[in-house]
Amino acid sequence: MEEILVLSTGGTFDKAYDLLTGNLQFQESFVPSILRLGRSTLKTETQTVCLKDSLDIVDQDRESIANILKKSMHKRMVITHGTDSIAETASFLESYDLGKTIVLTGAMIPYSFGASDALFNLGSALAFAQVLKSGVYVAMNGKYYHAGSVKKNRVTGFLRQSKSPL
Amino acid sequence: MEEILVLSTGGTFDKAYDLLTGNLQFQESFVPSILRLGRSTLKTETQTVCLKDSLDIVDQDRESIANILKKSMHKRMVITHGTDSIAETASFLESYDLGKTIVLTGAMIPYSFGASDALFNLGSALAFAQVLKSGVYVAMNGKYYHAGSVKKNRVTGFLRQSKSPL
Amino acid sequence: MEEILVLSTGGTFDKAYDLLTGNLQFQESFVPSILRLGRSTLKTETQTVCLKDSLDIVDQDRESIANILKKSMHKRMVITHGTDSIAETASFLESYDLGKTIVLTGAMIPYSFGASDALFNLGSALAFAQVLKSGVYVAMNGKYYHAGSVKKNRVTGFLRQSKSPL
Amino acid sequence: MEEILVLSTGGTFDKAYDLLTGNLQFQESFVPSILRLGRSTLKTETQTVCLKDSLDIVDQDRESIANILKKSMHKRMVITHGTDSIAETASFLESYDLGKTIVLTGAMIPYSFGASDALFNLGSALAFAQVLKSGVYVAMNGKYYHAGSVKKNRVTGFLRQSKSPL
Repeated sequence: MEEILVLSTGGTFDKAYDLLTGNLQFQESFVPSILRLGRSTLKTETQTVCLKDSLDIVDQDRESIANILKKSMHKRMVITHGTDSIAETASFLESYDLGKTIVLTGAMIPYSFGASDALFNLGSALAFAQVLKSGVYVAMNGKYYHAGSVKKNRVTGFLRQSKSPL
Repeated sequence: MEEILVLSTGGTFDKAYDLLTGNLQFQESFVPSILRLGRSTLKTETQTVCLKDSLDIVDQDRESIANILKKSMHKRMVITHGTDSIAETASFLESYDLGKTIVLTGAMIPYSFGASDALFNLGSALAFAQVLKSGVYVAMNGKYYHAGSVKKNRVTGFLRQSKSPL
Repeated sequence: MEEILVLSTGGTFDKAYDLLTGNLQFQESFVPSILRLGRSTLKTETQTVCLKDSLDIVDQDRESIANILKKSMHKRMVITHGTDSIAETASFLESYDLGKTIVLTGAMIPYSFGASDALFNLGSALAFAQVLKSGVYVAMNGKYYHAGSVKKNRVTGFLRQSKSPL
Repeated sequence: MEEILVLSTGGTFDKAYDLLTGNLQFQESFVPSILRLGRSTLKTETQTVCLKDSLDIVDQDRESIANILKKSMHKRMVITHGTDSIAETASFLESYDLGKTIVLTGAMIPYSFGASDALFNLGSALAFAQVLKSGVYVAMNGKYYHAGSVKKNRVTGFLRQSKSPL
């Protein structure tokens, strides 16, 4: 079985409550904890690229991600990312035409809360990453979307199909 | 998007604590709750076939499942099942040669406990059900196995590849 | 058994994640949920005075609380309150000399997170409210403090004895 | 502040899911975990007397508990105990006339499940142990009962006042 590269970038996935400030802040990625809780036996390499709200992700961060993906030996990867700009990062990465299967995923409720969708989404993203052919995808709410055909509905907070994929 | 049929049969997935007896018992399937917690926007039809420990699943139960799958209009389905005999049920269903994508999944810790792998496994099973070609599969711990090539390791409690799929 | 009045004022106790803004906000008090989860069989009347971060609690809010306590038939009451100014509110209420047993309590982690101390603190506050003689107290971390002899350590986030009670 | 002795005897409080057998079993007491989750700053000494379903507690176990309490320097103690025979153990201990404040408590849902009342009950038991005068008490569901005046309602699973305390 092929190893999957799992990159963390922050977003709701990784937000934690800071009891001194009373705010949500980033400390470290929860991806390793989620893999343990899911009792994953997949071969994975986990790496944190940055820990940012996705509204603060800039093209320099996207280039860092692209460079890691380009240089990596892995053919299949999952990226955890805030949902506000997950569609933009997916389109950005698609333009690199890397010939790999890249699945971005996020969460609507922080994993550090008990009732989060992070576990469900990471489970589905890792599954899609194993079986979809090369390309860039966003996996959320049980579904997957092709990069370039998804956007966030700011009223409901859910991702949705923006147009048919090419 | 095609609707996915999700059948519940009990197993660890659906065990709940009964505060009068102090034992784990079945009340109803947690699959609808898990879909809500995962904020699934997939089209799914959920149905409970039985609520049994998988050591108590007999061939009559497996025939009931096969009959539901056979008559259903759905081409893609997920079945939640106890892990003790999940491999047996997968092989049983494969012999029917239904020409559909059927993914069985289970859990090692009951969903009614906070720290369960059920959410992760259902997320991955639904993803595999959307993209794998017709056949019978078991999805656990992030991986998928072909029916006939998986068995449970009774020492560790984990499923493992028993032989290469045909 | 005497009925206990339980007033909510917001604070960490009642913070919830807002999935549209990605921030912690107030929606409603979690006190009724916590009483259910604790399987409380106490006679309680619950009431929400305000839903505020305790840094935003002003003397007008404290007067509202004092007026409710003064007019109430209840002799024993619990108030959930943010920890940043819980000591100030306790001292304010003590100056009214109401001749009732008043126990303020808070939490360091929001109840809406799984791993909160809110359930523990509400359990102890309700116990103290039943057995302490009239006066104003703050209950946190298993302990109780007399109003006027407690302050928050801003470095650790914990409350501590500031001086011996009179 | 006086140190409180906290004895564990098993019961629902300490039941955990065993993923190999699929049953609830005892591994170790969760009392130290609960004290951490509750962010207790009380001085406590924790000790495990036995890990048993309370239907399996026999008078020899009760004598072990009584001997520990008798020899201990502590004047205040909490005992976690299954609810099926918690009333019997309370009466047994009362007959020793130890001149200490002894509070027994239990849970209706195991702590290892997310939605347990154990945290609430331990919070209230520790509070009662600090302020009640010497005697033996059972604390459950927010209330406390005198030994000899409480019994379990086997239909609802809740404890209730059996007669007025002397």
